[in-house]
Amino acid sequence: MASVEMIEEEAATGRVKEVYEDIKESLGIDFVPNMYKTMARNPAYLEASWNKIRAVMNQTGKLDDLTKAIIALTVSTMNGCAYCINVYTDAVGKYGLDDDGLTEVAAVSDVFNGLNKFNTGLDVEMDEKPWYGCGGTGG
Amino acid sequence: MASVEMIEEEAATGRVKEVYEDIKESLGIDFVPNMYKTMARNPAYLEASWNKIRAVMNQTGKLDDLTKAIIALTVSTMNGCAYCINVYTDAVGKYGLDDDGLTEVAAVSDVFNGLNKFNTGLDVEMDEKPWYGCGGTGG
Amino acid sequence: MASVEMIEEEAATGRVKEVYEDIKESLGIDFVPNMYKTMARNPAYLEASWNKIRAVMNQTGKLDDLTKAIIALTVSTMNGCAYCINVYTDAVGKYGLDDDGLTEVAAVSDVFNGLNKFNTGLDVEMDEKPWYGCGGTGG
Amino acid sequence: MASVEMIEEEAATGRVKEVYEDIKESLGIDFVPNMYKTMARNPAYLEASWNKIRAVMNQTGKLDDLTKAIIALTVSTMNGCAYCINVYTDAVGKYGLDDDGLTEVAAVSDVFNGLNKFNTGLDVEMDEKPWYGCGGTGG
Amino acid sequence: MASVEMIEEEAATGRVKEVYEDIKESLGIDFVPNMYKTMARNPAYLEASWNKIRAVMNQTGKLDDLTKAIIALTVSTMNGCAYCINVYTDAVGKYGLDDDGLTEVAAVSDVFNGLNKFNTGLDVEMDEKPWYGCGGTGG
Amino acid sequence: MASVEMIEEEAATGRVKEVYEDIKESLGIDFVPNMYKTMARNPAYLEASWNKIRAVMNQTGKLDDLTKAIIALTVSTMNGCAYCINVYTDAVGKYGLDDDGLTEVAAVSDVFNGLNKFNTGLDVEMDEKPWYGCGGTGG
Repeated sequence: MASVEMIEEEAATGRVKEVYEDIKESLGIDFVPNMYKTMARNPAYLEASWNKIRAVMNQTGKLDDLTKAIIALTVSTMNGCAYCINVYTDAVGKYGLDDDGLTEVAAVSDVFNGLNKFNTGLDVEMDEKPWYGCGGTGG
Repeated sequence: MASVEMIEEEAATGRVKEVYEDIKESLGIDFVPNMYKTMARNPAYLEASWNKIRAVMNQTGKLDDLTKAIIALTVSTMNGCAYCINVYTDAVGKYGLDDDGLTEVAAVSDVFNGLNKFNTGLDVEMDEKPWYGCGGTGG
Repeated sequence: MASVEMIEEEAATGRVKEVYEDIKESLGIDFVPNMYKTMARNPAYLEASWNKIRAVMNQTGKLDDLTKAIIALTVSTMNGCAYCINVYTDAVGKYGLDDDGLTEVAAVSDVFNGLNKFNTGLDVEMDEKPWYGCGGTGG
Repeated sequence: MASVEMIEEEAATGRVKEVYEDIKESLGIDFVPNMYKTMARNPAYLEASWNKIRAVMNQTGKLDDLTKAIIALTVSTMNGCAYCINVYTDAVGKYGLDDDGLTEVAAVSDVFNGLNKFNTGLDVEMDEKPWYGCGGTGG
Repeated sequence: MASVEMIEEEAATGRVKEVYEDIKESLGIDFVPNMYKTMARNPAYLEASWNKIRAVMNQTGKLDDLTKAIIALTVSTMNGCAYCINVYTDAVGKYGLDDDGLTEVAAVSDVFNGLNKFNTGLDVEMDEKPWYGCGGTGG
Repeated sequence: MASVEMIEEEAATGRVKEVYEDIKESLGIDFVPNMYKTMARNPAYLEASWNKIRAVMNQTGKLDDLTKAIIALTVSTMNGCAYCINVYTDAVGKYGLDDDGLTEVAAVSDVFNGLNKFNTGLDVEMDEKPWYGCGGTGG
């Protein structure tokens, strides 16, 4: 059971109502997700969070939408946040990654989670020269 | 100080020596990284780890080399593994991401780490309909 | 399904029974929580855990009960422990924090989880002078 | 070594320069911390992050400044972020917590980290009735 | 709901089919676990993962089967992975650990999770001399 | 730099002094480790922590000393606590595990950290029947 009572759309007024409208229009959905309805208990926080999300996710930078969604999915997996894993599994699908691609993301995560803990556990010392990771395809 | 004594290149024989040669050739470097020289205390483990790393990183799949390196960097950041953060910061640079791109990866990570813990802490319930993440640029 | 069979109240004898009575009396409840009934498989561990919990939570120190409960809730959120999140969401409510306060705790957690990972991912170096955090209200 | 080159104060222009001035004035310090100088590689992100930090930390809500700083320190400890542990150890001191108080924060964290993992490892089932935490002092 | 469609046994061909047969024979079970059926979307990854698992778990080394299973359970608890906690709770039982033993594993985990965070939070400095842990029974 | 000033041995009195003596005698060392000298700022906490540590580590139960030390090392690795990794690397050595054994502990940790995150990321569903882990040697 959710810990706090959400501010439902019909109860929203003022800045909360405006942010709700902006969320629905920006994301192209006809409802306000529970995450935002929970944040809305603190209107200044809701607004600042939404603005930060947009500044990071909606600006044209070095990363395309799929890559950002993959980072979001990876972070959410690391934190074990079922809510965000669910949302971003849908998101990477929308941006074109199929089941094979999702499995590949999880495979890369598998490899490096393992290596990270090996290195931490045995306190492996940094190399004196860079080695640019565990290889690629040239692609 | 590293916890275990590594198998140095000049001491490597048999399968360990072969894997060391393959690592240097595949990665295009003239030394064996400490991580592999530590794994080499257990030759079967070294060989199986290297084969898995190659199966995941060197096959042509749905993700390009930069995207895989970004996942590796994100996972390593989540685990706080300084060794791998260092290696994969160099790697994403090699694959073309500059300082602005690195900052963008960290910014996306910032956003979702925050949201993950908000949702976990307040036990926010899953929405009944998918909403495909927090928006993008269309790019 | 729980992994181990708990020691139910009617089966408790000796030191376990005494600790059970103390737990109920100290916490003002008419049942022994599952956590303690699981610990009871190892009576010495149950007793030492309960004594440590009391030493930390029941002594008059620098922190009031609400602050300690907020720390407990924050730690439990970080670990993703649904059992303890649930217990300490109730606890902070008992100590006077309403839904707006709970949202505020989650908002502060959101901010610093994000900043932590930004700093770790980019290996931001410590400043030479202290700066005492990201500001306050003077309150 | 930091991963990306920071935007130093003398190189800041436009919105970055304005945010830098606001940070120094708001926090009452005569330098811009490295965290913000790193964020500044992405001006929109810097500005949105600073606005969110202020919305959460500078508004008068249910939690006082010390309590928010304790949450920040606890979160940073959980993430093992040395940079933020350092900043918020100084911050809780500024807000009045002495060495005994810092030890008390760490003691509460000790207790619940332990209990969290006990409950997760043995999959302890939620109790049917609330029990409001492990007790307090009435203070 | 699982994120990707698994490769069911009757749909497996070529290397996937061979690995499936090897898994069932090696583990002495009459079905392929969901973890492997999910990995099978990427046959090279499935095969390399299975080979690494066998290299680590099936070789005769310094650790017996129960000790390895206890490490697996401890790691899974730390990551909060319900799937693996479940599998390895069964596994340690198969290797002879009863409910009292499981509780003991969780008790040791409780102690060190607590101490870890105490030391990290207060940045306790390493001692100049080794002290070989918190004591034992001589057994 | 450590966050709080420790209670040095020559400054210890009363219960703190008694616990210090007990620690040195029980562990067979001629100094009090920094962890305990930090805890000593809160004497009731020091005493209760030491009693819990002894109840868990010094009782004869189902696990031998080496197995408990391996759990302690694994937990400390997962938390990235350099202080405890250091202490317990020495401890497992004292209990007989050599460099090959340490590497084996890290290899098992590598495998399951990887698998944990694969299963969490793809939300792999529990199997209907138990399968007792990824195999062993029969030893």
